[in-house]
Amino acid sequence: MSLKIGVLNISDRASAGIYADTPGQACIALLREWLVTPFELDYKIIPDERPVIEAELRRMADDSGCCLVVTTGGTGPAPRDVTPEATSAVCEKMLPGFGELMRATSLKFVPTAILSRQTAGVRGKTLIVNLPGRPKAIRENLEAVFPAIPYCVDLIGGPRLETNETVIKIYRPGS
Amino acid sequence: MSLKIGVLNISDRASAGIYADTPGQACIALLREWLVTPFELDYKIIPDERPVIEAELRRMADDSGCCLVVTTGGTGPAPRDVTPEATSAVCEKMLPGFGELMRATSLKFVPTAILSRQTAGVRGKTLIVNLPGRPKAIRENLEAVFPAIPYCVDLIGGPRLETNETVIKIYRPGS
Amino acid sequence: MSLKIGVLNISDRASAGIYADTPGQACIALLREWLVTPFELDYKIIPDERPVIEAELRRMADDSGCCLVVTTGGTGPAPRDVTPEATSAVCEKMLPGFGELMRATSLKFVPTAILSRQTAGVRGKTLIVNLPGRPKAIRENLEAVFPAIPYCVDLIGGPRLETNETVIKIYRPGS
Repeated sequence: MSLKIGVLNISDRASAGIYADTPGQACIALLREWLVTPFELDYKIIPDERPVIEAELRRMADDSGCCLVVTTGGTGPAPRDVTPEATSAVCEKMLPGFGELMRATSLKFVPTAILSRQTAGVRGKTLIVNLPGRPKAIRENLEAVFPAIPYCVDLIGGPRLETNETVIKIYRPGS
Repeated sequence: MSLKIGVLNISDRASAGIYADTPGQACIALLREWLVTPFELDYKIIPDERPVIEAELRRMADDSGCCLVVTTGGTGPAPRDVTPEATSAVCEKMLPGFGELMRATSLKFVPTAILSRQTAGVRGKTLIVNLPGRPKAIRENLEAVFPAIPYCVDLIGGPRLETNETVIKIYRPGS
Repeated sequence: MSLKIGVLNISDRASAGIYADTPGQACIALLREWLVTPFELDYKIIPDERPVIEAELRRMADDSGCCLVVTTGGTGPAPRDVTPEATSAVCEKMLPGFGELMRATSLKFVPTAILSRQTAGVRGKTLIVNLPGRPKAIRENLEAVFPAIPYCVDLIGGPRLETNETVIKIYRPGS
């Protein structure tokens, strides 16, 4: 089985080519730095349109077979920010602990962390995790929740993810 | 544009005149202490009736044009406590980080903080924030989340709020 | 009025007799250690079937008249874990602070705490609290939220619960 991970940058301006996709590239760089298990990347930049986001999440989960999809952008309170709603709409199970820990982590840096509506959930055998839009915050947030991700992927029937333990320590109960 | 802020005290006993509205007055006193931007007040005391709360939140947002509405009361587990449900019903977007931070803040003082179901959300260009019913807890909670409120109001297309930085520091990313 | 507390172990393997019900027994031992108010126990082991869980929660609340029901198991991200969904479906009010505090507590021990989807809610005069499945985690979690439980039961019209203050301190505002 080829292991696939989806990276979905959700941004009107990045998808229109106005901005370079630094958030998506930041996610990819972290995954490559941390994971020693080889993986294939499913990478897309799309606008902040809820039906487009939902269709893309469904495609990455159901057709592409990604075990993990990380999104960046679209989690704030602005009218165009609809990533959490799209994520909830396609997931069977929500994991509120991801959003709680990411906000608590960002709160150590900025009081506006409470404006982030990031969440995570499970669709079939795919874990979907919303990340913020700024590369610095992406690293802080993904670093906080990543130690639980490989075990979560195990629990939902996905492939075994192994990391470079010198750069990030993960945890599997009983191991 | 005249800047308006709504203060909504939700309490059967205060609306029946049995209690003085100390929670509403506590909110008003804090807003006047912290904000240097002049604002007009839209202030009401209503009973714990979900349709009445929803109608009043809609009026303050849509007709009165408040950029911010703070509610007090009705957030506990008792049968008459329905403020969070009314808030969720009128908002297009929920901001779970507000409730998380307010509960974490109150937990430093009382273990019963976890019984509060406070939330916050956005309806159009209006940020709605639930606060507890006791003046001491109102100050502790509003102090915790207020640093993020002016930037949130910016993001939803509201007016620019400025505070007296010697009494409360707010944060706007990139400023 | 006889005071009743429900303990519901939700586990395919325990209900099939493959595992001994150590989680349910751990809950019962804690309640007996902490509560000085005499109580009758309503105790069941059922499989991870959402309709079965919902029916049992309704029975414990409406027919048995439990003031408190604690569940163990079924709160993770695996396909068979549906306890939080069943809990939400039967409750009129959700209490997100319980899940937040339990996850924050478990996070001090394991990074996989964020995978727990535990919640709590109120159905009529019954407080329902989801606990994890491992005895060590059950104690850590119930210890964190228990100080708020007797006051919550007061607020929803239940009987007065008193604890052995030498083993666990509870809190009632104004008392």
